[in-house]
Amino acid sequence: MVLDLNLLREEMDLRRPAPGIGTPRQEDDEVEILSGVKDGMATGGALTMFVRNRDRDSDKYKQFRDKPRPGHADQTAVAKYGECHDIRGGGQFSGRMTAALVAGGSVAKQLLAEHGIVVAAYTESIGKVVDARRHGIQDMLSIARSNDLRAASEDVIEAMREEILGAREEGDSIGGVVHCLIDGVPVGLGEPFFDTVEGELAKMMFAIPAVKGIEFGAGFRAAAMRGSEHNDPFVVVQGRLRTAKNDAGGVLGGISNGMPIEFRIAIKPTASIAKEQRTVDLKKMEETSLAIEGRHDPCIAPRAVAVVEAAAALVMADLSIRGGIID
Amino acid sequence: MVLDLNLLREEMDLRRPAPGIGTPRQEDDEVEILSGVKDGMATGGALTMFVRNRDRDSDKYKQFRDKPRPGHADQTAVAKYGECHDIRGGGQFSGRMTAALVAGGSVAKQLLAEHGIVVAAYTESIGKVVDARRHGIQDMLSIARSNDLRAASEDVIEAMREEILGAREEGDSIGGVVHCLIDGVPVGLGEPFFDTVEGELAKMMFAIPAVKGIEFGAGFRAAAMRGSEHNDPFVVVQGRLRTAKNDAGGVLGGISNGMPIEFRIAIKPTASIAKEQRTVDLKKMEETSLAIEGRHDPCIAPRAVAVVEAAAALVMADLSIRGGIID
Amino acid sequence: MVLDLNLLREEMDLRRPAPGIGTPRQEDDEVEILSGVKDGMATGGALTMFVRNRDRDSDKYKQFRDKPRPGHADQTAVAKYGECHDIRGGGQFSGRMTAALVAGGSVAKQLLAEHGIVVAAYTESIGKVVDARRHGIQDMLSIARSNDLRAASEDVIEAMREEILGAREEGDSIGGVVHCLIDGVPVGLGEPFFDTVEGELAKMMFAIPAVKGIEFGAGFRAAAMRGSEHNDPFVVVQGRLRTAKNDAGGVLGGISNGMPIEFRIAIKPTASIAKEQRTVDLKKMEETSLAIEGRHDPCIAPRAVAVVEAAAALVMADLSIRGGIID
Amino acid sequence: MVLDLNLLREEMDLRRPAPGIGTPRQEDDEVEILSGVKDGMATGGALTMFVRNRDRDSDKYKQFRDKPRPGHADQTAVAKYGECHDIRGGGQFSGRMTAALVAGGSVAKQLLAEHGIVVAAYTESIGKVVDARRHGIQDMLSIARSNDLRAASEDVIEAMREEILGAREEGDSIGGVVHCLIDGVPVGLGEPFFDTVEGELAKMMFAIPAVKGIEFGAGFRAAAMRGSEHNDPFVVVQGRLRTAKNDAGGVLGGISNGMPIEFRIAIKPTASIAKEQRTVDLKKMEETSLAIEGRHDPCIAPRAVAVVEAAAALVMADLSIRGGIID
Repeated sequence: MVLDLNLLREEMDLRRPAPGIGTPRQEDDEVEILSGVKDGMATGGALTMFVRNRDRDSDKYKQFRDKPRPGHADQTAVAKYGECHDIRGGGQFSGRMTAALVAGGSVAKQLLAEHGIVVAAYTESIGKVVDARRHGIQDMLSIARSNDLRAASEDVIEAMREEILGAREEGDSIGGVVHCLIDGVPVGLGEPFFDTVEGELAKMMFAIPAVKGIEFGAGFRAAAMRGSEHNDPFVVVQGRLRTAKNDAGGVLGGISNGMPIEFRIAIKPTASIAKEQRTVDLKKMEETSLAIEGRHDPCIAPRAVAVVEAAAALVMADLSIRGGIID
Repeated sequence: MVLDLNLLREEMDLRRPAPGIGTPRQEDDEVEILSGVKDGMATGGALTMFVRNRDRDSDKYKQFRDKPRPGHADQTAVAKYGECHDIRGGGQFSGRMTAALVAGGSVAKQLLAEHGIVVAAYTESIGKVVDARRHGIQDMLSIARSNDLRAASEDVIEAMREEILGAREEGDSIGGVVHCLIDGVPVGLGEPFFDTVEGELAKMMFAIPAVKGIEFGAGFRAAAMRGSEHNDPFVVVQGRLRTAKNDAGGVLGGISNGMPIEFRIAIKPTASIAKEQRTVDLKKMEETSLAIEGRHDPCIAPRAVAVVEAAAALVMADLSIRGGIID
Repeated sequence: MVLDLNLLREEMDLRRPAPGIGTPRQEDDEVEILSGVKDGMATGGALTMFVRNRDRDSDKYKQFRDKPRPGHADQTAVAKYGECHDIRGGGQFSGRMTAALVAGGSVAKQLLAEHGIVVAAYTESIGKVVDARRHGIQDMLSIARSNDLRAASEDVIEAMREEILGAREEGDSIGGVVHCLIDGVPVGLGEPFFDTVEGELAKMMFAIPAVKGIEFGAGFRAAAMRGSEHNDPFVVVQGRLRTAKNDAGGVLGGISNGMPIEFRIAIKPTASIAKEQRTVDLKKMEETSLAIEGRHDPCIAPRAVAVVEAAAALVMADLSIRGGIID
Repeated sequence: MVLDLNLLREEMDLRRPAPGIGTPRQEDDEVEILSGVKDGMATGGALTMFVRNRDRDSDKYKQFRDKPRPGHADQTAVAKYGECHDIRGGGQFSGRMTAALVAGGSVAKQLLAEHGIVVAAYTESIGKVVDARRHGIQDMLSIARSNDLRAASEDVIEAMREEILGAREEGDSIGGVVHCLIDGVPVGLGEPFFDTVEGELAKMMFAIPAVKGIEFGAGFRAAAMRGSEHNDPFVVVQGRLRTAKNDAGGVLGGISNGMPIEFRIAIKPTASIAKEQRTVDLKKMEETSLAIEGRHDPCIAPRAVAVVEAAAALVMADLSIRGGIID
């Protein structure tokens, strides 16, 4: 397989912080390929991609060992890994780890594209600004890739930006929702027990820091619906079997049903905020307060769009290989 | 380990349909133990439990091969498995398969109990009837185990029942939300990549038919929150480190943080309804309509409570073994 | 897929003890199919096969808890599983567990046969009686399936039988070698790291009780060979690429090379013997002696032929599915 | 855990070719640590070690695409991976890949050492020169680490060296046997089905290029033994339960029995030889001949000792973690 390094570069750039709304911390996110590619072709051997950290500012993390940051894994990690846990930059809990997902996901995307499977996502909401429109994949591939909010509707861009800037001005952060669509999925991927399409995607998504929920199709709305309202009627469109809507999100019985796979991801607000928070001094076992200085994104959602796409592509490539669609 | 078969029997009974609101189809759900137990003790060998189907009415399923039921995996399964797919009772896509989860989950629960880990759940909502109160695990272990709605607040029971009966009267069905709490979890279970506590639980939950979403702690609400509002402040309670609330749902960085693990599950309305629905006659490739006769639960949520508990227990037992807490 | 239950019955019978040289313990080894088959077809759902123990004589095993049998896992199992270890019949360490491998292997064989892959084996040696001839798969499919020694050369049958009877007369047992050939394997199955064809087969073979060694192609003989002697020269046979001999045993770099896969399995002598042996009384921590009464095969090798075939078929089916050859 | 980089360096050096008997190709085998270590401590995050190729001579490999080398995976790999297979240096089939095993194995060894588990190996035979003595682990840790043949008996060193030089003089190569011992293993590691101690070790060993066989304890010799001869009698030594000999190789029923684990590995002669060999010109589909120039080890066995130790250490660390011995 030809590996297009320009596409890889584009995906990496889509994950980088945007001027104005993102962290001023600048990493070039250069991907060095250590093995598995020769003359632009994947050789079939292990593909090793390496992204170096360059813009480090490690000193200010030391204090979090004794005064753990609320919403972070500082204390949890020390409990698990002991004193040798590397707390600099959050260590393996850093959002920076998602650069690797995006690099790997770009390869998966290229592999899927050869089989007509396309993964795309966009920012559905930032705080209270919600893009209520339903988008096809074209909006995600064009509009959402050309604005730094990763919004699929142009008229929500400025409101989303203000929501982020408003949070930052107050030394605070804000959450959001990422909406993902996978088009061109053949019927029959996944298993009823236990490797469902939903389960495999969900497991991967929760490896992305800050993800706190996932729903497919109508998701939590389905809980308040009647069956007659929620069930997708079967219809014939141009001689092919389809469903009239897609409240099932493309999955029935854990197996892809041939409709686009559609899911929404809840992204919590960035845990690192400048505002003073309550925490505990672990040495004295006394409550104290903490204000986190540093260069943090006030909202992760726009950057998470590239990560969700990449993670979904990795899962779909795996399911496609297991299902005999690829290779 | 001593295996208490009375506890197993109790769990199986909690999954059975309740008179009035459930399907009249009656299975005794007797668990035969084929291997792995001697003199009431698990031997360490493979534990095989077998639940026979007795109350079968297979003939009426034949038509669904040509006229797939909306919201069901009939057509998806035939596409995947071919003509040999066993469509009787929905085959391996039947909700009946969850009897096995409950049987296995009861063993996991008993194992966890020896280490102070307790799993409990309740029906948080049925259709538009929502129990907005926050419940501790005691409500789930007492109230929610003693009413057939599996409700944790006594004053919502009747409204929930009416919501179900109302749907059934119209030949329809209704969805719900199951809320689950896992108490006594030590800090440090799970991995940041890829075997997160959330990811492992989520993957398992999506193997339960009708589950369409999962969220931990504040979940999707977190998407509209500020960091200062969502972050759990650390506090000292009786000399021990805790968090003031539990918006993280007991997991930080994919790892249990010592607080209860808390999540919500969206259950879609039962796909099988008496009301006429649109579908396609696959032989003629023509749209047609379908009314499903038979004995179906108008709402799965109350029965799903036992299944969610069992599935969560299986995951927690596995994570505890991997984490060196058990054995 | 059609599941031929007669073939299953034949395979099960090939594992049963032969009159005269085998244990007089008689199990009918009836396979009950609990799920996954309808109208003679595998449905795609979980296939559950169940073989009951009928001819039990459990009492005489009790003493082995305190006086562990040399060569058996009695003491090892109690150390691992504790007092709840079920020692009757050797529990999960019983050779009886291989009945399940043969049942599963028969399904794998039928699946492989649809793709032209054939697995067969024979008894290469019993004690000092060695069949030094090289056999093609036809000898294994005809001769070796029609004599109770599972020998591929008719003129070694009686010598092998005498070797077994000689051991039994002295209250002793004897080991043997099983030789296995897998024909029709396409080039390209397996991975160089870590899922090699040899590694996957080896891992499975060591799950068969009494297996103590495995070698592929020239195996240990290769250790004394020169490269010029061991390397398989490439040749053209009827327009197709082959190797002149098959000292590599059908695998190069962990990957099938299109030649038959060929390996040999060392089977240790039955651990249960009537002859007096030294052991330890674990209660007194004192050395003592033990003579095992009961109904034991003086040589497992002939019965192991069916088990090795079945185990190899299970691995090859798995590798074929992963390699996209099947399904 | 403290990671001793000097020990890592020592292990890497033990894998390097020895002057005189090894290839003149010189790699410094420097291990760069890309992640997972801080201030000499493993952090608990992913440990990434990287060994660069420096001394490359890639041009001469091109011809093997059309004229595959007997005994190598050239043709097999092209059949599997297609034209993009990287044939330089043998690609992922190169013995050079074992440098990574040794690096990882050194970490595993250090982890095991903290729990009293020691892995060591030596060259038991080269061609027809066999060291028939039985060695304790001290011989392997002292003598076998201080001579370039990795022999455990000083009086076989020169004969082994001559065996290698004799093969090289004729443009040929020679095989050997590596013998491995694992001391300090607690009783109870491994499972009867399917993750046996033997199976896990065997699977890993076959990932080492040139390995063609493995046997535990008496191994293939057991096939010609009587049960009374092969069974290990239990004895009491200094108040502890032991076996009198160790023909079982430390494993009963797939589970470690507390005795040292002992196995032998067959190493085939190096496939690359200067002597002319028969092969096929794949473009013309015609038989032809090939003489391989270049810098090849005439015998891999002495270098394989470090690799077998490392691979065994990786497996034992994994089994120890799963068995709750470590962590």
